[in-house]
Amino acid sequence: MKFVQFYYKNDLKNVRVGILEGEQVIDLNKSDLSLPTTLIEIIKGGHVEKANKLNNPVTTPLNSVILTAPLHGMDKVLCVGLNYKDHCKEQNFTPPAIPFIFNKFPSSVIGQDKAVKLRPEVSTKVVCEVELTIVIGKEASLITADEAYDHVFGYTIAQDIGATDWEKNDQMGQLLLGKAMDTFCPIGPCVVTSDEVGDPQMLDIKCSVNGVQKQSSNTNQFIHKIPDVIARLSRAMTLLPGDIILTGTPGGVGVFRNPPEFLQPGDVITSEVEKIGVLYTRVENL
Amino acid sequence: MKFVQFYYKNDLKNVRVGILEGEQVIDLNKSDLSLPTTLIEIIKGGHVEKANKLNNPVTTPLNSVILTAPLHGMDKVLCVGLNYKDHCKEQNFTPPAIPFIFNKFPSSVIGQDKAVKLRPEVSTKVVCEVELTIVIGKEASLITADEAYDHVFGYTIAQDIGATDWEKNDQMGQLLLGKAMDTFCPIGPCVVTSDEVGDPQMLDIKCSVNGVQKQSSNTNQFIHKIPDVIARLSRAMTLLPGDIILTGTPGGVGVFRNPPEFLQPGDVITSEVEKIGVLYTRVENL
Repeated sequence: MKFVQFYYKNDLKNVRVGILEGEQVIDLNKSDLSLPTTLIEIIKGGHVEKANKLNNPVTTPLNSVILTAPLHGMDKVLCVGLNYKDHCKEQNFTPPAIPFIFNKFPSSVIGQDKAVKLRPEVSTKVVCEVELTIVIGKEASLITADEAYDHVFGYTIAQDIGATDWEKNDQMGQLLLGKAMDTFCPIGPCVVTSDEVGDPQMLDIKCSVNGVQKQSSNTNQFIHKIPDVIARLSRAMTLLPGDIILTGTPGGVGVFRNPPEFLQPGDVITSEVEKIGVLYTRVENL
Repeated sequence: MKFVQFYYKNDLKNVRVGILEGEQVIDLNKSDLSLPTTLIEIIKGGHVEKANKLNNPVTTPLNSVILTAPLHGMDKVLCVGLNYKDHCKEQNFTPPAIPFIFNKFPSSVIGQDKAVKLRPEVSTKVVCEVELTIVIGKEASLITADEAYDHVFGYTIAQDIGATDWEKNDQMGQLLLGKAMDTFCPIGPCVVTSDEVGDPQMLDIKCSVNGVQKQSSNTNQFIHKIPDVIARLSRAMTLLPGDIILTGTPGGVGVFRNPPEFLQPGDVITSEVEKIGVLYTRVENL
């Protein structure tokens, strides 16, 4: 199943959750009033099976709704850095022995076809990285790698946007402020359940800016595989339903290009992960 | 006003928000059904004035309820590091030129008289730091220091608990995982509104473990004052109502003592900030 969140064009205040089927969206709450209107409530409430067996699905054409981030209101937005060999190499880092973790905030999250907002007053060196993103389905605390997939709900695509000029500037190497600016975590277009993705470590992953391909790899290139990332995180904290984990980006990131390439107003960023879809955003000044 | 959140002993499922007056708690929603039952909704909904002018306040004795964290469900838990001169000195750091920022997660937050849970399987070097904590009242994005106090709702006390053996271990200096373990952000006992605190840069601040004083200072010792911290953060991101900012800790932290002192099961941590109150927690193994 492919879950989306969306607005009807005549009601931009109330988010809805639906299932994407081709060019149609099934509105879950309209199909069954006992179902909630957000994906995080679907996940937390264990409503997936009910959503999959609707008696009277109410559909609406995809092109008649406005997609938003397929998930919001999570507790944590965790990110793995330095998780593809070529991305380590382009910045002369030894691949880390255990997953290297930083984070963004839920308020950094935006969705399909929305604007990444540059803050030209404070940063001029913003880059984009495409990342396969895990959505947690069940609480995970002190679990082993063998148990990890049982705690995954599904996957989406993220664009890990970062202000590289903030990442080192007087922050003693803390990535937080440069990575967690408003709008710096586009996700979407949908969250695909695990059963439909199959092996998440065998997916082509790509990113282009203005139609020019900048990144192209496969998730089989991960340094730390998904189960090891989840197990590691669960040693420190309880992963909660709806938490997301961005799993790192392949080589080709703008700041390491020669000459370096930074996002500019008007740019269009297109990110694709096999079996999930295509996430596109545009770049504007705040 | 001093806001608390609590449970009735016969209803441990539904959190309530109240105003603390001496040994009595006014239950806001019971006093006026149009008021919400959580502090974050009071702040977001602008209900403070109404809460301050109740026609028929319904009170209950403080000792008949169970206090919990005075605030939950925030988007961001931000922290300032290295913000007292003596704390910089005890670890041989030059005071940072601009506020040094890291974070915890909303799921790290616990309240009065609750247990800080050690994870002896994964960490043996956990320390505690007392911190004056800002509660944001109004959205703040790209504001100046002069405007900052207009965006503050009030203040609480936090214990910034950290697993020092995780802070450097293969995390390239990212503090996140060591700082954001479950239960590592006790806050409370109440949130005091700005008007009642007066000058937040002139408050005695203390912390003891098992009755032995470990930290004692005054918030007039900050390297970066509250307005500068808020202005700095607002350059990167929109601070939202309910977001909290831990403002750093004075010297005397266990890991820098000779010999080093780490939290042990059975310890009681007592933290006091003038005009706010006393926050106490106990230490247990998970």
